[in-house]
Amino acid sequence: MPLTPLPNLIVEPIVRQALLEDLGRAGDITTDAVAPPDCMAKTVMAARQEGVVAGLDLAALAFRLIDPAVSFKPVLADGAFVSPGATVATVEGAARGILSAERVALNFVGRLSGIASATAKLAAAVAHTNARIVCTRKTTPLLRSIEKYAVRAGGGANHRFGLDDAALIKDNHIAIAGGVAEAIGRVRANVGHLVKIEVEVDTLAQLEEALGAGVDAVLLDNMSLDDLRRGVNIIRGRAVSEASGRVTLESAPEIAATGVDLISVGWLTHSAPTLDVGLDTMT
Amino acid sequence: MPLTPLPNLIVEPIVRQALLEDLGRAGDITTDAVAPPDCMAKTVMAARQEGVVAGLDLAALAFRLIDPAVSFKPVLADGAFVSPGATVATVEGAARGILSAERVALNFVGRLSGIASATAKLAAAVAHTNARIVCTRKTTPLLRSIEKYAVRAGGGANHRFGLDDAALIKDNHIAIAGGVAEAIGRVRANVGHLVKIEVEVDTLAQLEEALGAGVDAVLLDNMSLDDLRRGVNIIRGRAVSEASGRVTLESAPEIAATGVDLISVGWLTHSAPTLDVGLDTMT
Amino acid sequence: MPLTPLPNLIVEPIVRQALLEDLGRAGDITTDAVAPPDCMAKTVMAARQEGVVAGLDLAALAFRLIDPAVSFKPVLADGAFVSPGATVATVEGAARGILSAERVALNFVGRLSGIASATAKLAAAVAHTNARIVCTRKTTPLLRSIEKYAVRAGGGANHRFGLDDAALIKDNHIAIAGGVAEAIGRVRANVGHLVKIEVEVDTLAQLEEALGAGVDAVLLDNMSLDDLRRGVNIIRGRAVSEASGRVTLESAPEIAATGVDLISVGWLTHSAPTLDVGLDTMT
Amino acid sequence: MPLTPLPNLIVEPIVRQALLEDLGRAGDITTDAVAPPDCMAKTVMAARQEGVVAGLDLAALAFRLIDPAVSFKPVLADGAFVSPGATVATVEGAARGILSAERVALNFVGRLSGIASATAKLAAAVAHTNARIVCTRKTTPLLRSIEKYAVRAGGGANHRFGLDDAALIKDNHIAIAGGVAEAIGRVRANVGHLVKIEVEVDTLAQLEEALGAGVDAVLLDNMSLDDLRRGVNIIRGRAVSEASGRVTLESAPEIAATGVDLISVGWLTHSAPTLDVGLDTMT
Amino acid sequence: MPLTPLPNLIVEPIVRQALLEDLGRAGDITTDAVAPPDCMAKTVMAARQEGVVAGLDLAALAFRLIDPAVSFKPVLADGAFVSPGATVATVEGAARGILSAERVALNFVGRLSGIASATAKLAAAVAHTNARIVCTRKTTPLLRSIEKYAVRAGGGANHRFGLDDAALIKDNHIAIAGGVAEAIGRVRANVGHLVKIEVEVDTLAQLEEALGAGVDAVLLDNMSLDDLRRGVNIIRGRAVSEASGRVTLESAPEIAATGVDLISVGWLTHSAPTLDVGLDTMT
Amino acid sequence: MPLTPLPNLIVEPIVRQALLEDLGRAGDITTDAVAPPDCMAKTVMAARQEGVVAGLDLAALAFRLIDPAVSFKPVLADGAFVSPGATVATVEGAARGILSAERVALNFVGRLSGIASATAKLAAAVAHTNARIVCTRKTTPLLRSIEKYAVRAGGGANHRFGLDDAALIKDNHIAIAGGVAEAIGRVRANVGHLVKIEVEVDTLAQLEEALGAGVDAVLLDNMSLDDLRRGVNIIRGRAVSEASGRVTLESAPEIAATGVDLISVGWLTHSAPTLDVGLDTMT
Repeated sequence: MPLTPLPNLIVEPIVRQALLEDLGRAGDITTDAVAPPDCMAKTVMAARQEGVVAGLDLAALAFRLIDPAVSFKPVLADGAFVSPGATVATVEGAARGILSAERVALNFVGRLSGIASATAKLAAAVAHTNARIVCTRKTTPLLRSIEKYAVRAGGGANHRFGLDDAALIKDNHIAIAGGVAEAIGRVRANVGHLVKIEVEVDTLAQLEEALGAGVDAVLLDNMSLDDLRRGVNIIRGRAVSEASGRVTLESAPEIAATGVDLISVGWLTHSAPTLDVGLDTMT
Repeated sequence: MPLTPLPNLIVEPIVRQALLEDLGRAGDITTDAVAPPDCMAKTVMAARQEGVVAGLDLAALAFRLIDPAVSFKPVLADGAFVSPGATVATVEGAARGILSAERVALNFVGRLSGIASATAKLAAAVAHTNARIVCTRKTTPLLRSIEKYAVRAGGGANHRFGLDDAALIKDNHIAIAGGVAEAIGRVRANVGHLVKIEVEVDTLAQLEEALGAGVDAVLLDNMSLDDLRRGVNIIRGRAVSEASGRVTLESAPEIAATGVDLISVGWLTHSAPTLDVGLDTMT
Repeated sequence: MPLTPLPNLIVEPIVRQALLEDLGRAGDITTDAVAPPDCMAKTVMAARQEGVVAGLDLAALAFRLIDPAVSFKPVLADGAFVSPGATVATVEGAARGILSAERVALNFVGRLSGIASATAKLAAAVAHTNARIVCTRKTTPLLRSIEKYAVRAGGGANHRFGLDDAALIKDNHIAIAGGVAEAIGRVRANVGHLVKIEVEVDTLAQLEEALGAGVDAVLLDNMSLDDLRRGVNIIRGRAVSEASGRVTLESAPEIAATGVDLISVGWLTHSAPTLDVGLDTMT
Repeated sequence: MPLTPLPNLIVEPIVRQALLEDLGRAGDITTDAVAPPDCMAKTVMAARQEGVVAGLDLAALAFRLIDPAVSFKPVLADGAFVSPGATVATVEGAARGILSAERVALNFVGRLSGIASATAKLAAAVAHTNARIVCTRKTTPLLRSIEKYAVRAGGGANHRFGLDDAALIKDNHIAIAGGVAEAIGRVRANVGHLVKIEVEVDTLAQLEEALGAGVDAVLLDNMSLDDLRRGVNIIRGRAVSEASGRVTLESAPEIAATGVDLISVGWLTHSAPTLDVGLDTMT
Repeated sequence: MPLTPLPNLIVEPIVRQALLEDLGRAGDITTDAVAPPDCMAKTVMAARQEGVVAGLDLAALAFRLIDPAVSFKPVLADGAFVSPGATVATVEGAARGILSAERVALNFVGRLSGIASATAKLAAAVAHTNARIVCTRKTTPLLRSIEKYAVRAGGGANHRFGLDDAALIKDNHIAIAGGVAEAIGRVRANVGHLVKIEVEVDTLAQLEEALGAGVDAVLLDNMSLDDLRRGVNIIRGRAVSEASGRVTLESAPEIAATGVDLISVGWLTHSAPTLDVGLDTMT
Repeated sequence: MPLTPLPNLIVEPIVRQALLEDLGRAGDITTDAVAPPDCMAKTVMAARQEGVVAGLDLAALAFRLIDPAVSFKPVLADGAFVSPGATVATVEGAARGILSAERVALNFVGRLSGIASATAKLAAAVAHTNARIVCTRKTTPLLRSIEKYAVRAGGGANHRFGLDDAALIKDNHIAIAGGVAEAIGRVRANVGHLVKIEVEVDTLAQLEEALGAGVDAVLLDNMSLDDLRRGVNIIRGRAVSEASGRVTLESAPEIAATGVDLISVGWLTHSAPTLDVGLDTMT
């Protein structure tokens, strides 16, 4: 299942805006003053930590948008494991272009690789089960497309991308509708035939009601391991089962062992630390 | 030293774009199906963790841009400490508007409060010294203005905002110029009189050279505590001294004790975990 | 099943861009020359044809963006049937604002009402069956959100909104994959759990293969009425059935009578004629 | 009188926005899952109906913006007549790029060719006269430039492009000014010397008044054939004469026979059905 | 002939972008540090030079976009003459908002008033004749709409607004076409009936040729006063006559005395000095 | 000290917007009608006045964005002196592209060269002193980056680029704070360590207070030559000294002779007349 790159049409405006944010009104005044236009540099993008790399297309774009003549050659592909010191890519060309784009390129690679790395660790922790790790809508504002991509790069799967591509009925919706089945009914009556419906349930009673009403997936929120197991038993394949809440590297295998199909983790995108990646000059 | 809010002109486009990212082409199909237009809700934005809150203006905007009639009343101000369970704001109005904007509002508050909280912890750790905590350019792409603001909300100070508002001479620049003094000279000859110059030095010899050439600030990068102490002694107030590298809650007080003026920390903005903040319906 | 308005955040940029397209660089030079600023007008937006009205929010926005003091009062709601001459809304205020925004407002209402009207006619033609009318991705470039909304206003339902919110496997995909089942397998392995999969089949053999592989919906493309009936029999509720191709007001009831769940119609959005709606000055 | 292509600067943002509308946040998930990156395709864009083709530059751009390596070779030029089955262009390259851009490319070509085809039919119907077919401002919001271009591709001519490039005095303006001559006077006093003035008149008396005041063109709105003839006689070349209202393929020759210079038709742009154009894989 | 304000839809994006250009990533750091939020200010916008004021709507917008609570009350209207010291408007509200928007507001008013003032001086110099002063396309990039408005505010008239709203045949076009009449013929065959055609001629022979071919206006470029007089005699009202080249306050009356209808002046928009306008705190 | 070009990322959006402003909705209708697509032209961009050229990158972009096949070859570099008639660049290619982009290209080169030329004259007038000429924030809205660049091209230096990259304490700030020292203290407490602080002083007493409080630069506003001399004596290198107010070609040398470091001049950017540059066809 190879990783498909995001369309350039989606990615380029983000990289462009990030560069403009850094260049400000006057550009890289330090590099412009120090480096003559004909000064060349050979650099290596290298990981300083173990993890999974992601975002190389964005780094390539950052250099290319600053200076189309800079050569960015990826040594690894997004989704590859890296050990500390591993070369990720070589970047060669005018020193001006390389130094001016460096920070933005690394900010993208660091963030996306951080997400991919966290995802990969969790995925490895449940690799012996059928459970998959999925992300949520708790992404960084303006970066949802690329953060969801990073989750895929790390071996995880994606939950819905927004409020509009799938229905997720939560506790507030249930309260407003006056019940699980009523909420499901209202949604089914209003959405198109290609929209899936998932319901977040807090209790096994709600789960039964949801399954009775018919749903594509159920989100078993913050349930004990026992209740998760019972829930999976109740579901018996009638819907996709998703567990969420208090997922850690330690708890993930136990949650996965309950038989749930999916384990969703908000912190993959909102709190995964950056992977330390740097740019080293070759001498 | 009160915290000044960012201009709405800077903040609103970011919030607007974040909402559009979540609404997609069809909007909040779940809430639209479940909640009648006249269904009202009273909710409370509450912290679920200890920390420092930031980003309430962005949350307010998220609700207002979705539904101008929603009332968002902050109970605390950005920069305030919160304990778990503390009410941050009340949000009342049509359930549709509140539920549709909820995730985006929380994504902003969670991220910015996470940065503010991490900054505040570090700031507290060095509060008995003269050292201040500062951030770097390792910010989330497209969010630099608001992340730098969050650092201020947490009691930290800001480093430069981009490549153009101050000169920071790094190892690569020194290598290209052929020496610290030459690099400083090139920069001084090219930048305006309101641009400060900082040099990153790895050795005390470089530090001496930099001070000899005259700079506004020196970045003592990855130096031992002993070298930091020696560096501070050498500087004697001739430049602002900044330490960076391997800063943790544990190491920060020791670094601060060397007498440096500033401790810069990249992970405040690139790796601080989100502060858990939620929206609870009042019953 | 009431119609939910589109979020203003989605609609306003479209209306704003449409007005700027019409105003050009100098604005409404005719009205500015003729009408003094204090000249008031009372006008009525009226249908000149029978149909279903849609797009009143966009008309309201067009007037408001040109002159916030213009009062636009809808008499009918989107989705309402109109007979020729029926008043749709009253528009009162400065003549300048009303005349400058008139054309753009009418262009929106005419187009969206045209789509809603065509949809409503088709929906009425199959109202005695269980079949629903759905649109396609053959929408006017840049107007997909509002055209899909107009279909809902006319009593139809929406197909997917883009390439990313559901998988639709077509003949080319099947040819590339080397078979229906293989194509389905590749898609299922790559998309998230909230993404539905539909397959377009040309033959009953392909239909059997698709159902065997498991899909959410099947698109029976350009099949004879006999084959549609056989297809429905084969499906027996294992998937949503959708018929497409050569749908007209005449053929729709016959197609619906085969028992298909959905009838998809590209010309609702790409070729429905505008509903004639005008703005009349009250005297 | 060859057709000049629109500047790429005008067209590209429209095509880009249309592609982004279709790609959404995740891109073409079906094609990405099914087609390996190295899978090549040879396709032919072919007309399925008789008509006049337009919009090939936009189709070329759609493919190029998705994948610059896709080769789009037009076989016909915009403005050419096509019979059913005629090849319009060949499109070759990676299957991914071709399939992902296909719908957007066809949506543009279908719509613009539909307009060009309708225009060409009307133009042919009056070809034996001196009358020319012109469009109006009743265009699709956001697409005015390209729809006016399609009218030219079909052999029609353009009316004004917006509210600002020519003055068109309508009934409401006349009512506000208190008369035809007064309205004309106010406009002439306010607009630049390169702005033409046209007046819409409902009666021959108004026509006389307009000609007396001096105008560049008169719009004879909804007049009987007899009145049109009388109007033309009255005008005697002192102004361009334009007829509008109830123009059909049947009525157009009769209207043209009255001697008017121009026949303007709103439905060319607001209600012309799409020309059916498809993309066929070559085997 | 009162001055009509530009639509807010056209003006607001320009003012917004100008403010963002000045605020940068961190806003007005000086004012934010010095002025408490509740510090109020009463200020007066006053002319320091004689001239004609223009751009007050843009100034009002600048203050409003920074702080909607600031009260901007124009004392004069655009187009009014001011003597040194004259109060143009009062601006009251929070000191923060006023000081942060001040420079942008003054930059707009200064520039537009400078254009209006230069126009007014020239207009006065020819007021005893029938000649009118008109501007050209030599405007500041991105500011054409508002600079053309400033010319109107100063009592001048506008030439075409761009390459698309009128045809202006220049020497290069004539050379390419092989003659004045041929160039006119090509243009007339290609443009709509509401597009005027002007030809730039260098000699009286070209003028005769142009009039013979029929044009709406002739631009007599860089001709001697004698030739201008002869040209006017030749034209005899068959076309609008426009003189251009070497127009100064001194030469304008002489040029006007030749009987030309229009005198066009590029430096009104590209080289008129700013009118000195300042903001004074009332004590 | 060579001149560094601005990043293309900053410049291209400005040129693109300027071209769209000129092309409008229909493009260059005159050239499109007159020039066949294969008509080639060889032209020369030439100065018609003495001065310093700037903005050639923007001109190159204007031609390239209209027609990538047009060859723009600069003969001189930005910052070079030109005499009347000097060739600045050659521009060859399709006549259509060249004629359609000509005006926008010249508008940029004329304006930026005008600023560079005015700066160069002032710089030459003080070249025998240590004083440098600097610009202000009185720039054309939306063009600050490129106008500040033009000042550098003319041999001047840049003041701050906006409200956020340096603190400039003015009379209003001092009044609000209640004194020079208090204002400085508030600013220093709130801004980062890489932000310089300048204070505008009207009297020598204020100057003493400012120096006592410690600032990076002092702006001696509208002082007599005597006071400037006294001020320089007082400062004795403790801060950068800047003089402003009533700077002309005549007064500049006298001001410079007082020993001030900088002379700031608003009219360089807001009132410098365009340098006359034209495009001539080679025969």
